[in-house]
Amino acid sequence: MLAVTILGNNSAIPAHGRHPTSQVITTSEDLLLFDCGEGTQIQIMNYKIKRSRINHIFISHLHGDHYFGLIGLLSSFALLGRIQPLHVYGPAPLEALIRTQFQLSDTHLPYELSFHAIKEDGLLLDTRYYTVSCFSTKHRIECRGFLVKEKKKPRKVLAEKAAALGIPHTFFSRLQEGEDYLLPDGKSIINDAVTTVGENPRAYAFAADTLYEPELATIVKGVDLLYHEATYPASLAEKAAERYHSTSVQAAELARKANVKTLLIGHFSAKFENIEEFETEAKTVFPETLAAKEGVTYLV
Amino acid sequence: MLAVTILGNNSAIPAHGRHPTSQVITTSEDLLLFDCGEGTQIQIMNYKIKRSRINHIFISHLHGDHYFGLIGLLSSFALLGRIQPLHVYGPAPLEALIRTQFQLSDTHLPYELSFHAIKEDGLLLDTRYYTVSCFSTKHRIECRGFLVKEKKKPRKVLAEKAAALGIPHTFFSRLQEGEDYLLPDGKSIINDAVTTVGENPRAYAFAADTLYEPELATIVKGVDLLYHEATYPASLAEKAAERYHSTSVQAAELARKANVKTLLIGHFSAKFENIEEFETEAKTVFPETLAAKEGVTYLV
Repeated sequence: MLAVTILGNNSAIPAHGRHPTSQVITTSEDLLLFDCGEGTQIQIMNYKIKRSRINHIFISHLHGDHYFGLIGLLSSFALLGRIQPLHVYGPAPLEALIRTQFQLSDTHLPYELSFHAIKEDGLLLDTRYYTVSCFSTKHRIECRGFLVKEKKKPRKVLAEKAAALGIPHTFFSRLQEGEDYLLPDGKSIINDAVTTVGENPRAYAFAADTLYEPELATIVKGVDLLYHEATYPASLAEKAAERYHSTSVQAAELARKANVKTLLIGHFSAKFENIEEFETEAKTVFPETLAAKEGVTYLV
Repeated sequence: MLAVTILGNNSAIPAHGRHPTSQVITTSEDLLLFDCGEGTQIQIMNYKIKRSRINHIFISHLHGDHYFGLIGLLSSFALLGRIQPLHVYGPAPLEALIRTQFQLSDTHLPYELSFHAIKEDGLLLDTRYYTVSCFSTKHRIECRGFLVKEKKKPRKVLAEKAAALGIPHTFFSRLQEGEDYLLPDGKSIINDAVTTVGENPRAYAFAADTLYEPELATIVKGVDLLYHEATYPASLAEKAAERYHSTSVQAAELARKANVKTLLIGHFSAKFENIEEFETEAKTVFPETLAAKEGVTYLV
């Protein structure tokens, strides 16, 4: 299970009912948050996201529209009596900002907050079901995107058939891993006979804020879903470059180059009330494009 | 002209569509903001407040529900190209927090941001039309309330009558100040004959977060409108005291003691979806009580 729920699809300034960047990643294990613009905790309530299942929060960079909602969310976790540990990954100076604000408000967290300063590209998190790694994008200040990869899924056990052949339930987890079963008479039941292949592991890349950077294609190559910013329409390519952002068509070009399955575009400029144009433009280059909508969950 | 528009009437955690503390004060001259919880800039848009008329922002204390929206609002002012100066008044450590965040995001403000650290009770702002002063409340951390007082209003000139008596228009502003007019023949027209008394100057007090503190009554004595927090209903007086907050009935007692005209209660605990009870309870002690509603403007 891998899915992305958009909490904010706007850039810089909230406008037209759209919010700054934040998205919830649903994994088989728990929820992750990618970026946390102002108002994220309200969006979490609006869309009935199970707050207590969020265990890891990743912040791409220190432009306000990507993290001004973090301190409020962490505070509310405290006020709601959260006790399970929480991990935050982001640029190093963020930790002091958070700790200072808690100190000034005389807040003592009831949960353990572990801050992981991102210092280089690479693996950030490795669980039983998935990994999260980060990669540098090209932005005005240091910025990183995140790549979630599911691990190889276990094989599916054909339970009735396995039981009929005399394989005990206690051995099923080993069948999932691909082992054969040795019968008491010395014969073996080969794994293929009692299992089928597991689901394909999925991959999702969140490319944060970035200039059009063809080299990113290598990093996000072949992912099932790529979220790439498209702050401006194609006509404003010059402005996009000046501000270290991308256009709809550039996002689509990157998706094509990287041969991803589906492209999700977002981080729309507040200047545009209607975002359909962004999707239409991108589709001319990469048909499998969707404009990210708030409150919508996209299966990876 | 003095009025208060409620942007947030909730305490601590946003809930039930209610937001953390923030209110806009409309004066004859400009707009003031008292506190700035997370999402204030969105509420400002929702209620079509003219952002550019906000010249002074006052922060009562450093609990997050009173200031987490400030950095976002200041950033958006920058992104929107604001050029007129802005004044922020609040606890001293707030300045470093703001400046650090702008530095980390490499933001260069196009407007002049003057930070005024509040170090003691007393006058903060003195304009042609009004003054704003601050007073200490009793809270878990250092906290101040704010008192806006209109200055004496000019007398109203009876324009037709004055003109008929031969008083030139250029003298009208002096009539407003109460002067008599000396005719060329040496006789004088006394001011009372061509003016009526100006409107009464109004006063509004925002008592921020506070324990029930009878001494506050002296400070807010006789104001036209008092905003006093009522985080809890009367039945939870013990909890209120523990957390340095007040109940509905305590707010009403203070209003009665201070002999104010109208009491506005707010900062309701997120535990309560229905806030009618707060108003009903308070009215048993002080009938002229209103529960603050978001988006509503209360004339002072």
